[in-house]
Amino acid sequence: MKKMLLVYILLIAAFALYVLRFEYTSQANSSWENRGLRGDIGETYIMITFQSGLEYWKSPLKGFEDAADTLGVTVEYRGATRYDAKEQTTVIEQAIARKPAGIAISAIDPQSLIPAINKAIEADIPVILFDADAPDSQAYSFLGTDNYKSGVTAADKMAELLGREGEVAVLTLPGQQNHEERTKGFRDTIQERYPSMKVVEIADGHGDAVISREETIRMMKAHPQLAGIFVTEATGGAGVGEAVQNAGEGQTLQIISFDTNKVTLDMIKNGTISATIAQGTWNMGYWSLQYLFHLHHQLTVPAPSSSGENAPLPVMVDTGISVVTRSNVDDYYAK
Amino acid sequence: MKKMLLVYILLIAAFALYVLRFEYTSQANSSWENRGLRGDIGETYIMITFQSGLEYWKSPLKGFEDAADTLGVTVEYRGATRYDAKEQTTVIEQAIARKPAGIAISAIDPQSLIPAINKAIEADIPVILFDADAPDSQAYSFLGTDNYKSGVTAADKMAELLGREGEVAVLTLPGQQNHEERTKGFRDTIQERYPSMKVVEIADGHGDAVISREETIRMMKAHPQLAGIFVTEATGGAGVGEAVQNAGEGQTLQIISFDTNKVTLDMIKNGTISATIAQGTWNMGYWSLQYLFHLHHQLTVPAPSSSGENAPLPVMVDTGISVVTRSNVDDYYAK
Repeated sequence: MKKMLLVYILLIAAFALYVLRFEYTSQANSSWENRGLRGDIGETYIMITFQSGLEYWKSPLKGFEDAADTLGVTVEYRGATRYDAKEQTTVIEQAIARKPAGIAISAIDPQSLIPAINKAIEADIPVILFDADAPDSQAYSFLGTDNYKSGVTAADKMAELLGREGEVAVLTLPGQQNHEERTKGFRDTIQERYPSMKVVEIADGHGDAVISREETIRMMKAHPQLAGIFVTEATGGAGVGEAVQNAGEGQTLQIISFDTNKVTLDMIKNGTISATIAQGTWNMGYWSLQYLFHLHHQLTVPAPSSSGENAPLPVMVDTGISVVTRSNVDDYYAK
Repeated sequence: MKKMLLVYILLIAAFALYVLRFEYTSQANSSWENRGLRGDIGETYIMITFQSGLEYWKSPLKGFEDAADTLGVTVEYRGATRYDAKEQTTVIEQAIARKPAGIAISAIDPQSLIPAINKAIEADIPVILFDADAPDSQAYSFLGTDNYKSGVTAADKMAELLGREGEVAVLTLPGQQNHEERTKGFRDTIQERYPSMKVVEIADGHGDAVISREETIRMMKAHPQLAGIFVTEATGGAGVGEAVQNAGEGQTLQIISFDTNKVTLDMIKNGTISATIAQGTWNMGYWSLQYLFHLHHQLTVPAPSSSGENAPLPVMVDTGISVVTRSNVDDYYAK
């Protein structure tokens, strides 16, 4: 009986030891050093865009979600359904009322959302802007594409495709700043680096597939030596692709498009479009969440200041671009 | 006796359950989702600079170390002791031979280190550049200060200090690109935004305290109405401070300096220097390590490609600046 009691006591001791070990390990996990960078599942970060149905937002949202999975926090996606600044303002105000851990916003225009953004900051809710900036707001950081540089890259790729010679044209949306910058980067680079190439026309595709198709047909007639077209947005790119497909076998126009919607990727796969410029959209979402997480957990040096004279995070981030061709197109279909 | 056996079995069962629970928890931790962003203590990341003894590198190294603590990895600091491109190349090659998980480099000049950087990339060792770029190398990203913008901020601060009127001067290092950009940002902003202010002289302080002091004394004589000096580097800033201190009570020159070494912070504390521009040096180090970690663990979208046509990370990061005055100077002393 005494022996039995000893075994009993030993067992209880071993049991207690395991419980303690387990509890100790859990406790140690609460410091950053031991548990890695990890938040709480109850922490909610919200991404807000305009025209929320656009295929374009899928990739930044995927980046936002991937960062949340890695950091163990929760995300939500909200958006104005239309291209409407008032609607987006309302969506931001509804988000503020829910007191989230942070908000990432793509601003419909540089001015309209400033009061709503500043209201969030004043309520101690961190705001990061991505894709489209509102530079005069109090948001901590902007992550987006350097559009001029994307035009430079498109020009270098076009020169490579054409053996550094021939006539090229641009189909764009004149008057919209990001498209103007893409066009300027392309045109400047052709002029400065490729003396045997010439930009013969810069046309307006209205961001519309039908108009872009008609404009392409017109330009191919007007410039019989036309060897390439750079089209600065995806919807028009599909129209250019159609025009060249319909022109038949003899036509060897090189098309460089923009962004990576499914139609564009399909046209790269079947050889209609030679290349497209992919923006670093996953990076916009991924690093927006990282930044919001660091602000929420006060992991930045310097700390944010009420005077706004401190920059606790990188203030401007060029998320980079990638050139998509047949050789890497499969990596860009949504997963 | 039967009752005792039952207790015995129950205890063993409870014990086994706890062991299992503990093991299960440990196992779950091996996926990113459950353990947070966390590496391995055996993973070593190396930071390499030139003039390794400079006080300036302490803050980027602190950021690098802080990120390593958070992510549970190891860092080392190496540097060329002198301002010598060959020595820095050797240090990089020695680092490559140790096959680290990643290398962060501040490049002594834009050209000299390109072969060594590309050699690391070819050996599948990720390289990120910070503070000083080598744009034609294959490094994945650059994190540093927008020097023009820092001059703009200095000009706005000077205007605030002087009530938007008066004569100002710049003491700089003509011919060095970052200093030229700081000067240009300052001068352009005064000209464009502040019609009652004037930049009366741009002088050469040679990055030397004694010369900067003498130049300040000379300028105060040459321009009796001089109300402020913007000095684009810290060593000269101390000289300007001395000149104004020695000039005595009547002198009310506003000084805006650059960077946050101890001498500068002390002069802000005692009121000699009104403000200094702090670069986002902690951010440079912190986010360099984060980027290297993400490359090493292949957490980026898109993945790095051998053709170099993918940008797996933000390519250019403006790490921001902060304005340090008496009110926040204590935050900037090394901790």
